[in-house]
Amino acid sequence: MTAAARRAGRQPLNSGAPWSFPPPWVRAWRQDWLAGDLSAGVVVAIMLVPQSLAYAMLAGLPAQVGLMASLLPLLGYAAFGTSGALSVGPGAITSLMVFQALSPLAVPGGISYGVLSAALALGSGLLLMLMGGLRLGFLSQLLSRPVVQGFTVASALLIMLGQVASLMGWKSLGSTLPDMLEQLMQHVLTWPAGAVNGNAQVGLASVALLWAGPKLLNRVGRAVGLSAARVQIGVRLWPLGVLLSAAWIAQHLLSTGAGPISLVGEVKLNVAAARDSLLQLGESLPAVWQPLAMPVLLVALVNFVSSMSVAQNFALRQGLRVDADRELIGLGVANLGSTVLGGMAVTGGLSRSVVNDAAGARSPLAGVITALILGIMMALFLPWLSYLPKSALAAVIVMAVVGLIDFRPLRQAWVYDRADAWAFVATALGVLLVGFETGILIGIAWSLGTLIWRHSQPHMAEVGRVPGTHHFRNVNRHRVEQLNGVLMVRVDESLDFTNIQRVELRLCELVHGRERIERIVLLLSAVNHIDHSAMQTLLELDRNLSDQGRCLYLAEVKGPLMDRLKHSRMDALFEGRIFLSAQHAWDALA
Amino acid sequence: MTAAARRAGRQPLNSGAPWSFPPPWVRAWRQDWLAGDLSAGVVVAIMLVPQSLAYAMLAGLPAQVGLMASLLPLLGYAAFGTSGALSVGPGAITSLMVFQALSPLAVPGGISYGVLSAALALGSGLLLMLMGGLRLGFLSQLLSRPVVQGFTVASALLIMLGQVASLMGWKSLGSTLPDMLEQLMQHVLTWPAGAVNGNAQVGLASVALLWAGPKLLNRVGRAVGLSAARVQIGVRLWPLGVLLSAAWIAQHLLSTGAGPISLVGEVKLNVAAARDSLLQLGESLPAVWQPLAMPVLLVALVNFVSSMSVAQNFALRQGLRVDADRELIGLGVANLGSTVLGGMAVTGGLSRSVVNDAAGARSPLAGVITALILGIMMALFLPWLSYLPKSALAAVIVMAVVGLIDFRPLRQAWVYDRADAWAFVATALGVLLVGFETGILIGIAWSLGTLIWRHSQPHMAEVGRVPGTHHFRNVNRHRVEQLNGVLMVRVDESLDFTNIQRVELRLCELVHGRERIERIVLLLSAVNHIDHSAMQTLLELDRNLSDQGRCLYLAEVKGPLMDRLKHSRMDALFEGRIFLSAQHAWDALA
Repeated sequence: MTAAARRAGRQPLNSGAPWSFPPPWVRAWRQDWLAGDLSAGVVVAIMLVPQSLAYAMLAGLPAQVGLMASLLPLLGYAAFGTSGALSVGPGAITSLMVFQALSPLAVPGGISYGVLSAALALGSGLLLMLMGGLRLGFLSQLLSRPVVQGFTVASALLIMLGQVASLMGWKSLGSTLPDMLEQLMQHVLTWPAGAVNGNAQVGLASVALLWAGPKLLNRVGRAVGLSAARVQIGVRLWPLGVLLSAAWIAQHLLSTGAGPISLVGEVKLNVAAARDSLLQLGESLPAVWQPLAMPVLLVALVNFVSSMSVAQNFALRQGLRVDADRELIGLGVANLGSTVLGGMAVTGGLSRSVVNDAAGARSPLAGVITALILGIMMALFLPWLSYLPKSALAAVIVMAVVGLIDFRPLRQAWVYDRADAWAFVATALGVLLVGFETGILIGIAWSLGTLIWRHSQPHMAEVGRVPGTHHFRNVNRHRVEQLNGVLMVRVDESLDFTNIQRVELRLCELVHGRERIERIVLLLSAVNHIDHSAMQTLLELDRNLSDQGRCLYLAEVKGPLMDRLKHSRMDALFEGRIFLSAQHAWDALA
Repeated sequence: MTAAARRAGRQPLNSGAPWSFPPPWVRAWRQDWLAGDLSAGVVVAIMLVPQSLAYAMLAGLPAQVGLMASLLPLLGYAAFGTSGALSVGPGAITSLMVFQALSPLAVPGGISYGVLSAALALGSGLLLMLMGGLRLGFLSQLLSRPVVQGFTVASALLIMLGQVASLMGWKSLGSTLPDMLEQLMQHVLTWPAGAVNGNAQVGLASVALLWAGPKLLNRVGRAVGLSAARVQIGVRLWPLGVLLSAAWIAQHLLSTGAGPISLVGEVKLNVAAARDSLLQLGESLPAVWQPLAMPVLLVALVNFVSSMSVAQNFALRQGLRVDADRELIGLGVANLGSTVLGGMAVTGGLSRSVVNDAAGARSPLAGVITALILGIMMALFLPWLSYLPKSALAAVIVMAVVGLIDFRPLRQAWVYDRADAWAFVATALGVLLVGFETGILIGIAWSLGTLIWRHSQPHMAEVGRVPGTHHFRNVNRHRVEQLNGVLMVRVDESLDFTNIQRVELRLCELVHGRERIERIVLLLSAVNHIDHSAMQTLLELDRNLSDQGRCLYLAEVKGPLMDRLKHSRMDALFEGRIFLSAQHAWDALA
C-alpha cells in the first residue's frame, strides 16, 4: 500500500454535519504539510493576479473587482471546504456566464451592473449553502460527464472568440456564436481600415510571449542545467512578467503617439465604496430577484459541478474522499465572501487547482496563504494596475482557456456510446448557438431522456435450462431444454410505468399463436422493484391470461420485493404461484 | 382456450404502417358481429345526445357544437383506429381542459372563442397524427397510473363543483378549487337572497331523477319479470327521457311565471356557418398559435393517454392487442373531423366505451352506426333542443363524472408504494389548486424523478459463496465463505452518471480500513449497460485502486456489454481481469 492509501485510512469517513466548524482538515493537518502549503500559496497568488483581473473584465466588471473578489472566498472555503487542492476564486466560464446573464439587464461596467453581479454572487452563495444544508450534494449527478465536457468546450470556444475583440481593440462581438461570427466577418471585410492598431500589437505580442515563454524557459533551463523545480518557478512567474512588459510597451507606444491603447485605468479600493455598494445591493434585491433566479440557479449548479469534479479528481488520486455537502457549504460561504468584498461569483477552477496541487498544496491552508500574499500585494502595488493594457489581459484569458478546448472526450464517447457523444454535441451546440441556460438544460434533458429511454426498453429473453445443470439461459444463444407447454421469460430491468406496457406486449408476442403454451414463468432475477402501475398491469395480465386458460408464475422474486408483496397482501393473489428459483419452478412444473 | 383467445390468434400482429387504410378491423370483420355493432351503435347514439350537448356547454361552447362535433370523429376513428369498444366524441375532462385553456383568451360562447376551440382541436389532431406517424405511441408511458388516476379524480371534482353553479343558475365559480370554494361560500352566505329559483328546481329535480331512475327501473323490472337486457334498454333511454321531462317542466314553470329559466336557446346547423368559421380559423391561426401551443400539447397527451388506457383495457379483456401508433392516427383524424364540423377537441371516453362494449360492439362499425343515427336525429329533432334547460344538462354532467371520483387507487398505492401514492396526491393537488397544465407537469416530473432517484440509489451487496455450491449470496443474509484478501461486490442496477458516484463511494467504504483486501471483484450480473461517464469513473477507480496496490476485477459481464467493451477496445484495459462468472473468479483468485 502506498502513502496515499495509508493517509486515506486515517481520514474519518463520517465527518459530521456539513456546516460544522472547524472542518476536518484542521484536525488532520500536520506540520510537515507546511512547506507544501506555503509554496503553493505563493505560486497561486502570483498566478491569481493576472487571472483575476482578466476574469473580472470578462464578466463585464472593473478589473480590480477580480482581485478583491479573490480574498475572502479563499478564507471562506478554507473555513468550511475539504479539498486540499481546490483553489477557489474568479473563473473563466463563471465570468462569461455572469456576463451573459447580466449584460441584457444593465450596462457592463456601470454601477447597477456591479450591484446585479453582487446579487448573483449572493444568490448562488445562499443557494449552494442551502443545498449543502439539505444535503443535496447528490444533485451534481444530474450532469453527466459528456454534458459537462460539451459545456466546457463550448464555453471555452465562446470565451476565446469573444477575447479576439479585446485582443484586437474592437468592440464586443456579442455572446453567441452566430453573432460573433457575423461581427468577426465584418471586421475581416473592413480589415485594412482597422489595421493592426496599438491594442492589437500589445495583445498579439502578449499571446506570443505567453505561448512561447514556458517552452523557451524549459529549453533554456535544461540547457544550463537548472532543476525542474526552479524552471517551474520561472514558468509560474512568467505571465506576471508578460503583463508588466506589456504595460511597459504600452507606455512606450503611447509616448511615441502610436494611437490610443485601452488601459485598465484608475484602480482603487476603499472600504466606503464597498459598504455603499452593499447597501445598494440590499435596497435593490427585491427588484432584481425575479430576472436573476434562473442565472443564480445555473451559476450555482455549474460552479458546484465543476468544482466537485476538480476536487474529486484530486482526492481520488490521493486516495481521499470529498464530502459533496461540505463542498457545497464551502463554495457557498466563498461566494458570500465575494459578495461582501468585490461582488462577483467565484468557483473552484481547474487550471489554478492543478498548479496549486503541483506546487505542493496539502490543505486549504494553502488558500489562506494565497489570500494573505494577495492582500499584501494589493496594499503595495494596487495603483500600478492602472497601467495594464486591456489587450494583454485578454491574452491571459485566451491562454488560460485554450487548454479547455479538448475534443478527445467526444471522440472516446463516440466510439464507446453514441448516445453520450450526442449529449456532448447537443450541449455544446446549445451553448454556442443560444446560450448557457439552453445548453445546460438541453444537456440535462438529453442525458436523463436517454436514461429513461433505455430503462423503458428492457431486455427480455425466453430461457431454457442448460442440460444437466441448474443454469437457465437465453434460448437464442444457448442449446437448452424446455418444458412442454411452459414458457420461461427473464426480464432484465425493474418494472415500472415506463416499461411495463412493453413487457406485456413482448409476453403477448411470445405466447401469440403458440396455443400449447399454458404456463408462463416470469423470472425476476434482475427486477429490484415493481411500482404500482406495473403491479396493476401485471395483475390485469394475470387475469387476462387466466381468461385464456393460461397461468402466470413468478420466480426468483428478490427479498425486498417479496416483502412489499406480503405487506400489501398481493402475494395472496399469486398464492402457490411464486417459486424461489427458476430450478424450483422447473421441478414443480415438470 | 376461450373464444377470445382463439380470436386473438387470428389477428395479424404486425399490421403495417399506422396510417394504412383500410384498418385491420375491416378485414377481420365478420357478419356475426353485425347484430352487436348495430345495437351498440343505437344505444350509444341515444346516450350521446344529452352528453354531447352538456360537454359542449362545459367547454364554454354553444350546446349544438357538441352534437356536430360527434359526427365526423366517429367516422374518422373508424377509418384508422383499431379498438372495437372505444367510443370517440366529446368528453368531460377534455371539455373542462378546453374551458380552462381558452377562457383567459376569449369570452366563452363568443365567435372568437369558437375559433380558438376549433384551432385547439385542429392542433391536437395534427399533433396526434404526427406522433402516430413518427411512431411515438410509447410517449403515453410518460404518465404513470397514479398520475392519470390523480388527474382524473381532481378533474372530476372540479367538474362537479363547477356544475353546482349551472345547477343552481349561478354564474361560473371559476376554474380552480380556491376560487370555487370562495365563490361558493359567498353564495351560501347570501343564501336566502338567491333562494331556490326555477333553474335550481329543474336542475335538482334532474339530478334526483337521473340518480334514482336506473335503481327504480332495475327494481321494477325485476318485480315484473322483465329480462335484464330489456331493463338495460330502459336505463340507457332514461337520461334522454329526463331531459325531455326537464324541458316540459321548464316550459310549465315559465308559463306560470316562476322566474327566468336558462334554456339552451336557438339551435341551428347550417353549412354556410361551418364554412365561414373554418375560413375564420384559417385566417386567425398565425395569431393564436403561440398561446395555444401548451394547451394543444396537453389536450393531445391527456386525450391519447386516457383513450389508450380505455382501449387497452377492453382489448386485454378480449385477448386482443391495441396498436398505440394506429390509435394516435385514429384519434388525430377524429379531431380533424371535429375541427371541420363542430370545432371542439374529442377523445375516447370511459363511460360511453363501457356502454358501447356492454351493448355488444365488436368493431368501430358500431361508431359508424352511432354517427348515422345521430345524423338522422339531428336532421329531425334539432330545433327541439332549444327548449332544454341548461341546469338539466348540468345534472347530466354531474351524474356522468361522479363515478370518476374514486379514491380506491390512492388507498391501494398507499399500501403498496408510498412514492406512487404521493404522485397521485401531487398531481391531484396541482390540478385542483393551480390548473391542468401544472398538475400534469407535476405528475410527470414527480414520477420520472422517483424513477431516476431509485435508479441513482443502486442496491449493492458484498457477497460470498454458499459453501459447497456455485451460488454467491449477500454476506449479511446468508452464511457464506469468503476468500482471503478478496472482496466480491454485486451491483443491482445498470451503471451510469446518476449512480456511479454512489457505487464508487460504497466501494471505497467497503475497502476502507480493511488493509488486507487487495483484490476486488465487481459482479455485473444485473448490469445491462455502463454509460460513458460510468466507464470513465470505473477506469479512474481502477487506476486509483492500483495506485493503492489493489486490483479490480470484473465478473459476469453480460454479452452486449462485453461487445461494447471490445468495440471500444476498453477490454484491453482490463486484460486478464474479466471473468465469465463469479465461480470462475473464485477459482482464479483462490
